[in-house]
Amino acid sequence: MGEKILLAHGSGSRLSHDLISKVLAPAVMNPLLARMDDSAVVELSGRLAFTTDSYVVNPIFFPGGDIGRLAVFGTVNDLSMSGARPLYISLALIIEEGLDIDDLQIIMQSVGGAAAEAGVQVVTGDTKVVERGKADRLFINTAGIGLIEGTADISGSNARPGDKIILSGGIGEHGMAVMSQREGLRFSLPVASDCAPLNHLVASMMAASNNIHSLRDPTRGGLACTLNEFARQSDAGIVIDEDRIPVHDGVRGACELLGLDPLYIANEGKLVAAVVEGDAGCVLSAMRENKYARQAAVIGYVTSEHRGRVVMKTSIGSSRIIDMPVGEILPRIC
Amino acid sequence: MGEKILLAHGSGSRLSHDLISKVLAPAVMNPLLARMDDSAVVELSGRLAFTTDSYVVNPIFFPGGDIGRLAVFGTVNDLSMSGARPLYISLALIIEEGLDIDDLQIIMQSVGGAAAEAGVQVVTGDTKVVERGKADRLFINTAGIGLIEGTADISGSNARPGDKIILSGGIGEHGMAVMSQREGLRFSLPVASDCAPLNHLVASMMAASNNIHSLRDPTRGGLACTLNEFARQSDAGIVIDEDRIPVHDGVRGACELLGLDPLYIANEGKLVAAVVEGDAGCVLSAMRENKYARQAAVIGYVTSEHRGRVVMKTSIGSSRIIDMPVGEILPRIC
Repeated sequence: MGEKILLAHGSGSRLSHDLISKVLAPAVMNPLLARMDDSAVVELSGRLAFTTDSYVVNPIFFPGGDIGRLAVFGTVNDLSMSGARPLYISLALIIEEGLDIDDLQIIMQSVGGAAAEAGVQVVTGDTKVVERGKADRLFINTAGIGLIEGTADISGSNARPGDKIILSGGIGEHGMAVMSQREGLRFSLPVASDCAPLNHLVASMMAASNNIHSLRDPTRGGLACTLNEFARQSDAGIVIDEDRIPVHDGVRGACELLGLDPLYIANEGKLVAAVVEGDAGCVLSAMRENKYARQAAVIGYVTSEHRGRVVMKTSIGSSRIIDMPVGEILPRIC
Repeated sequence: MGEKILLAHGSGSRLSHDLISKVLAPAVMNPLLARMDDSAVVELSGRLAFTTDSYVVNPIFFPGGDIGRLAVFGTVNDLSMSGARPLYISLALIIEEGLDIDDLQIIMQSVGGAAAEAGVQVVTGDTKVVERGKADRLFINTAGIGLIEGTADISGSNARPGDKIILSGGIGEHGMAVMSQREGLRFSLPVASDCAPLNHLVASMMAASNNIHSLRDPTRGGLACTLNEFARQSDAGIVIDEDRIPVHDGVRGACELLGLDPLYIANEGKLVAAVVEGDAGCVLSAMRENKYARQAAVIGYVTSEHRGRVVMKTSIGSSRIIDMPVGEILPRIC
């Protein structure tokens, strides 16, 4: 049995300082973080993207990742979806008393590895500890800053009729991986989270086209939620084609078993883009060069009809409205 | 009985969107937030300060403030301590299922009022909900970006022998206010939290002197922790004079009753500065013009002796070493 986190690790005492200097900081150290002031100081000029997300995923370890990777890639991806190059992230931990310090160390290694893969630096952080039963092992918040180079204006509100809708790969993998781990389900085809950094993918898409109108990573609420957000924010209709949406066989099987629709299941390493029709081909080619988007596909288009709504042409030839998810789907998936 | 937060309020579903658009966003709305993309986009150039803190204070309402004010001012203050003008903050909520939406609304009003007082904008946010018993009502994370104008180089590592140590006012008020509320204690002199934004105070200090070396707000671990951090980071000794440290009678009485030392109790609206000796007078005058620093005082000085250590001359004429706090003092004070 290893050491456990105590309340005093969060109290600003010598124990806090030891935890930071021995367990937390070494995994993510860099000269900006080393200053150890209340704020990090960075030199930057231009249009900056700024975002935040908290991660409360349960369990904190799951096939294909853990809460540390998720927290880094989630913020990297949110910055990327504004067309920004992610640069700096913050890392704030809320730890439940009693967490194994060994587990924390593994997660910090994960954070460090994820930051290195994405090419971002953890420059500032915070640690709080709450009593047993007042949190659930570990919650992580990351915020991030990225730089938008050139004149890119990418927003969920910029999709225009005629744009092609491109999806970077199979849907539902993250949600089903977490679900299977949490519920102890065994599917015939195991599913791993798609948890991945998408900044390099976005950079290559932006190098291929100046006409990417909208980008978003379909996390909570899945592809259905993201497409509905585009349709509402852009006041346009969206048509997608069921047959063109890649779904891993394991995800499909697990969803059928559980009565879930993969359209509503969370992803953590996928993106949806609305791209001017004429550029869709070159954007797609650029995407398929990236290891996280080999299965990228045009799955539909934006239309001036049925504004604010998403319609799917089904495999059997009918059409159905894909609504915004209404209630609870899978809690604590990210 | 009003409405309660459900798990589905955090699932990216229509309920989440309703909560954001009806309860969360209106209290803090501005054009940058209104874009509602994954990231906010802001134009900025120069040296930027970037910081984050999570707030897990228990209870979430206490005399003199609530978790919302604390979360805004805490990050405003951390930015200010780098000499930055705070501009933009993020707001990420982790809500326990069952929280009264009315309480959430009061806290959001508080966040909005605090942001207005400090002159910062909430530009991006996130909401997660966890099951009953997996958090404690509400945790808030804020991250923030500020701009460092001019050539200021303020850091805990810049204190130099000869510098005067200035404290902006009485210590221990936040910690004792939260403690009294949480434990249902009644002190003869009620104590309210000093929770306040210090950015305007810092701006007037920087206008008065170019020779402010170190600034820090003594939150968790109190004044003792901050002075020890300065001493270690700057590899210098610090001498303080017990008689010069302002302590509200209510705090003194409560601390005596509970066997606590006000030096180790958290503040949320105070700062400590290390300032070149010759400028201490004009900085002090500027500080006393500000409503949050009427009691500002020189409490000691930096020395080349006993490097890394803080020594206090006591009221009875002896000296004692003020060590870094060791274990737990007051959990969940911020």
